[in-house]
Amino acid sequence: MRREITGFSNPTVKYLRSLREKKHRKASGKFLAEGLRLLTDAGECGHLPEILVMSAGRDPHPLLAELEAAVEASGGEIIETTPDILSKITGKDNAQSVAGIFAEFDTSLASLDRSAAKIWLVAQALRDPGNLGTMLRTGDAVGAGGLILIDDCADPFSVEAVRASMGAVFTQKIARASWGEFLPWLRSGDGQLVAASLREAVPYRGAPYAAPCFVLVGNESQGLPEDYEMSCDLRVTMPMKGRADSLNAAVAGAVLAYEVLDALED
Amino acid sequence: MRREITGFSNPTVKYLRSLREKKHRKASGKFLAEGLRLLTDAGECGHLPEILVMSAGRDPHPLLAELEAAVEASGGEIIETTPDILSKITGKDNAQSVAGIFAEFDTSLASLDRSAAKIWLVAQALRDPGNLGTMLRTGDAVGAGGLILIDDCADPFSVEAVRASMGAVFTQKIARASWGEFLPWLRSGDGQLVAASLREAVPYRGAPYAAPCFVLVGNESQGLPEDYEMSCDLRVTMPMKGRADSLNAAVAGAVLAYEVLDALED
Repeated sequence: MRREITGFSNPTVKYLRSLREKKHRKASGKFLAEGLRLLTDAGECGHLPEILVMSAGRDPHPLLAELEAAVEASGGEIIETTPDILSKITGKDNAQSVAGIFAEFDTSLASLDRSAAKIWLVAQALRDPGNLGTMLRTGDAVGAGGLILIDDCADPFSVEAVRASMGAVFTQKIARASWGEFLPWLRSGDGQLVAASLREAVPYRGAPYAAPCFVLVGNESQGLPEDYEMSCDLRVTMPMKGRADSLNAAVAGAVLAYEVLDALED
Repeated sequence: MRREITGFSNPTVKYLRSLREKKHRKASGKFLAEGLRLLTDAGECGHLPEILVMSAGRDPHPLLAELEAAVEASGGEIIETTPDILSKITGKDNAQSVAGIFAEFDTSLASLDRSAAKIWLVAQALRDPGNLGTMLRTGDAVGAGGLILIDDCADPFSVEAVRASMGAVFTQKIARASWGEFLPWLRSGDGQLVAASLREAVPYRGAPYAAPCFVLVGNESQGLPEDYEMSCDLRVTMPMKGRADSLNAAVAGAVLAYEVLDALED
């Protein structure tokens, strides 16, 4: 199906805009992603948008033509609109010329195959969607299997998280669970849980990492609860040469994940 | 001097709020930082606020009492106001109960002593103030001397950058320069310029880093211009196991800086 929308007050525009809010994403089970590169990555990972929104006056591109054809073939909808309306939908001044509406994925722990990767990232009460998206992006880079979100985290399907993930929201598995669900799941199979910590910790360089290694990062301001840290198989410290006693959560996860990657590749 | 402000329309409130905008910071040469921990860190690094703004109903704290006394002794101003007005000034819903107005620092290259540290971070056209603040925080953690901002970067004195730096804006030296100013300055003394790159690069692990090592990170979406990369003494690659070909700029800088730290400590 293909149609053109030119009015800001069109109900479809209102619906698409509403996906910027968590409650509307939750109600509909849909989310929004923008940009041709990101939508192409999504397609190559088997995620086609249910609705493809394109702005008039966009540059023609063979990848966009392919995407359009694939969306139509799958029974999806193509909407042509103005650049202003697309900006309003994505909430970004200089909007990309294309956006897609996707169905949210299964985010149950049961959907994860822990043997599929040597590294998994785990975030606890991570509140900043930019940090969350950055962790997805880092996970993609280190070949992680996915990101497990523990307790009350930001929404991985928010526009900000999807944007910061640079497409990794489509390549990384995402699971959501409480600590009380996660720990028994982890202990029901192989898996080493590692956290950066100041408690009974060893230096992060050369620590005895083992696959599958679950790298746990805590909340931006509180860090990890002590009992979470003490449930880890390995606690490691990173050098802190200055006044601060911690790194940005996404940075800490990345420095640690790259160390684990190096250790497990030897 | 000490006074109480209870009206939103008070000219001082308007002035303090205006410091959230770059043009007003530039005009006044002042910036805003919030939170007792951050202000205490600033004081211990020799930076006292010219104005200390405190909200009524704050919890008493010995460090705050010390700070008040120091600001008064230095001829600064103490303003007591309501939590709502302080929120309005800092632009944050759950505002900290204290904020300070500081004079911006000297950000000339000439103010840097390159022999003061083994690592320096350098960012080119870094546009996101959160990334900039995160790089300052990482710099503090790896014992860097400071952050050099090349070409058109975000403002290190913006509320977002100061917040993300977690106080490192006061512990790290900050310099701003064009590439045309930076490169001759770098070449006028010791210094190895290193960038993450895909061009004629060696693996980042075990690369021949040398102090003082200047770790260069490029713009979030464009990366580094090719001629900047080719001016580097060392180009290194980091593993990219997934679909993406780059990391978040602040993450790339941190992973590289921790590798340099390890190499130079051996």
